[in-house]
Amino acid sequence: MLLSTLYIVGITAEAMTGALAAGKQKMDWFGVMLVASATAIGGGTVRDILLGHYPLGWVENPQFLVITCVAGVVTTGLAKWVVKLKGLFIRLDALGLIVFSIIGTKVAMSMGLHPFICMVSALVTGAFGGLLRDLICRQTPLVLHKELYASIALAASGLYLTLLELGLTDIVATSATLVVGYLLRMAAVRFKWCLPSFHFESEEPLH
Amino acid sequence: MLLSTLYIVGITAEAMTGALAAGKQKMDWFGVMLVASATAIGGGTVRDILLGHYPLGWVENPQFLVITCVAGVVTTGLAKWVVKLKGLFIRLDALGLIVFSIIGTKVAMSMGLHPFICMVSALVTGAFGGLLRDLICRQTPLVLHKELYASIALAASGLYLTLLELGLTDIVATSATLVVGYLLRMAAVRFKWCLPSFHFESEEPLH
Amino acid sequence: MLLSTLYIVGITAEAMTGALAAGKQKMDWFGVMLVASATAIGGGTVRDILLGHYPLGWVENPQFLVITCVAGVVTTGLAKWVVKLKGLFIRLDALGLIVFSIIGTKVAMSMGLHPFICMVSALVTGAFGGLLRDLICRQTPLVLHKELYASIALAASGLYLTLLELGLTDIVATSATLVVGYLLRMAAVRFKWCLPSFHFESEEPLH
Repeated sequence: MLLSTLYIVGITAEAMTGALAAGKQKMDWFGVMLVASATAIGGGTVRDILLGHYPLGWVENPQFLVITCVAGVVTTGLAKWVVKLKGLFIRLDALGLIVFSIIGTKVAMSMGLHPFICMVSALVTGAFGGLLRDLICRQTPLVLHKELYASIALAASGLYLTLLELGLTDIVATSATLVVGYLLRMAAVRFKWCLPSFHFESEEPLH
Repeated sequence: MLLSTLYIVGITAEAMTGALAAGKQKMDWFGVMLVASATAIGGGTVRDILLGHYPLGWVENPQFLVITCVAGVVTTGLAKWVVKLKGLFIRLDALGLIVFSIIGTKVAMSMGLHPFICMVSALVTGAFGGLLRDLICRQTPLVLHKELYASIALAASGLYLTLLELGLTDIVATSATLVVGYLLRMAAVRFKWCLPSFHFESEEPLH
Repeated sequence: MLLSTLYIVGITAEAMTGALAAGKQKMDWFGVMLVASATAIGGGTVRDILLGHYPLGWVENPQFLVITCVAGVVTTGLAKWVVKLKGLFIRLDALGLIVFSIIGTKVAMSMGLHPFICMVSALVTGAFGGLLRDLICRQTPLVLHKELYASIALAASGLYLTLLELGLTDIVATSATLVVGYLLRMAAVRFKWCLPSFHFESEEPLH
């Protein structure tokens, strides 16, 4: 129930930031709705396709897709305000990431999959929406260069699984993961944490 | 039966325009066949994957994939003629869009899905082939900037669903949707109808 | 058993070349692991999604995904050595292509699909990992321009199917396909065999 409410907040916020990315590419309303929806529910869609978890969330609950499309189009009229509320959106984005990670973990657990795959499921749910957004908008995918999402999705998922393993109830594990994950993500943003990166120059391609 | 015949005409025409896009990228024959097939049957493939509607059309009926590959390679020898027949191809493309939309609607209906999802299914079937073509060819996706496809796919699907709801037989609803949708699409091309677009400039990224 | 061993060798080698491609884009470790895994097991993943063959290989056997992620990260420290061993990697890549093609053929056969679809399944398994790598790294897909993969995957698959049809045992057909396919691929590399390509220039887009 808590998670469902936060999920709707999360996809709305993600759809709004997705719409801004579409606006930078001067897309029309269809493009705006597509990028908004891909950003918000694309990660969960890729996860469900990889796991063979049908029907997809938005196919079973079309209102999720309606929310992301409406949020996208509304954003075209509110772009200035959204930019002014940047601090709020960074917070909502952090919350959304943890909510998506917990949901991704739960979906894989409900299918009886290995804990490692549960964590990968969290990562895909949390980080692949932004990857899809950048691919459709033909931007260099941020998630591959400035690590702020994937590791935190993995950490949140691992924490959640550990707390359940320790015998805590689902509501306690969920709440604790939300708080710790949110703080971790905000710290990563503030202190600009990032993974080491790999620079490789070569004249000769290997493939 | 009518729809099956028109479907084969539609995928052939789409495959030929896809092959020309591959030719602009100087692709080899494999690239030509891939882009031709993605343009023609990629939309239906994405739809079936999203809906979990297996087996895919071309897996069950491999002749569809043979048709798109052959149409693609044949186009490499006929490119000049295809360009001269531009008016015919615009008409076939309009016809194909409506045929794809009706088929997409029917597939989702046969799975008992919500009418809104049936319309999304039509849109994906009709518009995502071109999106895939542009992603593989590394072109700015036309469908996101110059709206000529997605809205008409939605309108055709909505009309078809409404006519069935009003109690018309499938053949009447299909024929009426084909005629009205085709004229709508040709009007959109002629009068350069387009959706409003969203331009957004900002120094600071939100994500 | 032979095929399983060679499969692990193949995905390790592919993951290492994928990691170098990520390094050219200055990706972080998450990007390196994603591109390494997409290159090595992305072709099989796309095949399984297209065929509806669930669960995916790496979901059922998470160790495959662990191998590709570890191989990717290890490569960041060994890049110089990998480049020096270029000749070895070209050989491993050739071997991997044939192993992937045989596995792709076998998966489609086990689902009772048409021989043409079995060959397409081999092609997707063998060639789509590199296509995914180039799409994520925003490179012009090599596989669409310099045909060294797709035709050989098709030929290997066709040979394997023919040998089985002639009544040979699976181990004999597999071994013969491995040897012939490997030599064919190395000949294609050495003699720079390629498919004819299609260049098309036009002012007016058809779509």
